[in-house]
Amino acid sequence: MAKLSLNQATTKHWGLADAVDGCARAGIPAIGLWREQVAEVGVARAAKLVADAGPRVSSLCRGGFLTALDPAGQRAALEDNRRAVDEAAELGTDTLVMVVGGLPPGSRDLAGARQLVADRFGELAPHAEAAGVRLALEPLHPMYCADRAVLSTLDQALELAAPFPASVVGVVVDAFHVWWDPRLLPAIAAAAGRIASFQVCDWVLPLPSDALLARGMMGDGFIDFRVLREAVEAAGYSGATEVEIFNADVWAAPGDEVIATVARRYVTEVLPDQLS
Amino acid sequence: MAKLSLNQATTKHWGLADAVDGCARAGIPAIGLWREQVAEVGVARAAKLVADAGPRVSSLCRGGFLTALDPAGQRAALEDNRRAVDEAAELGTDTLVMVVGGLPPGSRDLAGARQLVADRFGELAPHAEAAGVRLALEPLHPMYCADRAVLSTLDQALELAAPFPASVVGVVVDAFHVWWDPRLLPAIAAAAGRIASFQVCDWVLPLPSDALLARGMMGDGFIDFRVLREAVEAAGYSGATEVEIFNADVWAAPGDEVIATVARRYVTEVLPDQLS
Repeated sequence: MAKLSLNQATTKHWGLADAVDGCARAGIPAIGLWREQVAEVGVARAAKLVADAGPRVSSLCRGGFLTALDPAGQRAALEDNRRAVDEAAELGTDTLVMVVGGLPPGSRDLAGARQLVADRFGELAPHAEAAGVRLALEPLHPMYCADRAVLSTLDQALELAAPFPASVVGVVVDAFHVWWDPRLLPAIAAAAGRIASFQVCDWVLPLPSDALLARGMMGDGFIDFRVLREAVEAAGYSGATEVEIFNADVWAAPGDEVIATVARRYVTEVLPDQLS
Repeated sequence: MAKLSLNQATTKHWGLADAVDGCARAGIPAIGLWREQVAEVGVARAAKLVADAGPRVSSLCRGGFLTALDPAGQRAALEDNRRAVDEAAELGTDTLVMVVGGLPPGSRDLAGARQLVADRFGELAPHAEAAGVRLALEPLHPMYCADRAVLSTLDQALELAAPFPASVVGVVVDAFHVWWDPRLLPAIAAAAGRIASFQVCDWVLPLPSDALLARGMMGDGFIDFRVLREAVEAAGYSGATEVEIFNADVWAAPGDEVIATVARRYVTEVLPDQLS
């Protein structure tokens, strides 16, 4: 389990201290943090909690939401994202996951929204570079294009990242969001040097009434995780595999039970070729 | 409204005769038929009904579901698709819309499923060519990749179509399915000569509990139809704009009211530049 990381969204109802302790109990060596849970205890205390307990911080979720049309909204988004960069640095991770935002309210100008994101990245990148934090562009499943992220494919993320050094702007490969993409394997190969995070959870059906909670435990759905893991490894990625599950049933289960299932399924579904 | 077509799925609870009459009353010059409603009256009688009432048949929905793994399932799918081709010819349309099918039951081999579709197309194409019917490959939104169509983008559809003459295998541009695609406009340009159908309905949120019914009336959602219409026209497409809406509220409304809204929204949302 050397590369396994628990994204704390998977144990949403635990506070940060519980999640960190849960990882320690289960022998999970890394954790992905969320700003909301960090804010509950304060960044400084969160940083100390994690440092004392020992897990590596594989990422901070999340910055982004950069598609405001008005200057005030754009300024506010930039300020918030600069704070997120600083928080990532203070928490000891070099990876800030970026969900870029959907169409501006009332707008149907998708190309324009994508340009807004590119513009904001240009403004944000110097701060990230100075802080030693990599902005990790996360393409989201196209079903979230209207309201969450106008960034929909890995190819598109690579195009957006291209003007920046790979150490400043990277990409996230989240199995749930990209598994369907017929261009995925060549895109992962093209992402060599840019992959900042590899996240897993399964595509399960039927979709729930809240589409944000559509993510399932690995093995419960349709994704061949081994193919994706081998592709990111072949592209030179040697970082964590972060398990991030938004799912009402998973959230309703006791945290230690969820973590135990995560650890077991990680082995059987993501590393099946390494089973002895 | 010279190019408007009512796909009869929009008035699902009407039989074929009602839909044909409804088009005539509203002055809609074309209709897209579904095999289920055609079967209710029989193909010969359906052909006569349509021919007598006058609307052009812009397409027949649908063939496909070609991802069976077993030889018996593959044979059955081929036979059914040959029948669909023959029905299209008898109904007087040269366009059979193809929804290719999802992952085979229990399988996570997405690349394999895509190869199955390519193999079946090779077997089906000669029959379509002989019948003068074009197989119109419809990429479906990636949220249907697991269970409905492993064909997810227009680029992918063009790749699958490439080995065949454009007169035998074409592609469908359905706004709902492809609007999010960052590669859409270049893909539409590359589809010149292959575009067999242009379908419209809107992306609305939240997604309903049955994801198949997520389609909204044009103007109720996030899609800029004019951009897409201009792109397919620039690619040389001069056929119908077919309105195909699966939506519980639309289905619950009286058919004539739905058709009136379709005709009005077609003008305001798809042809806004042609408003006098």
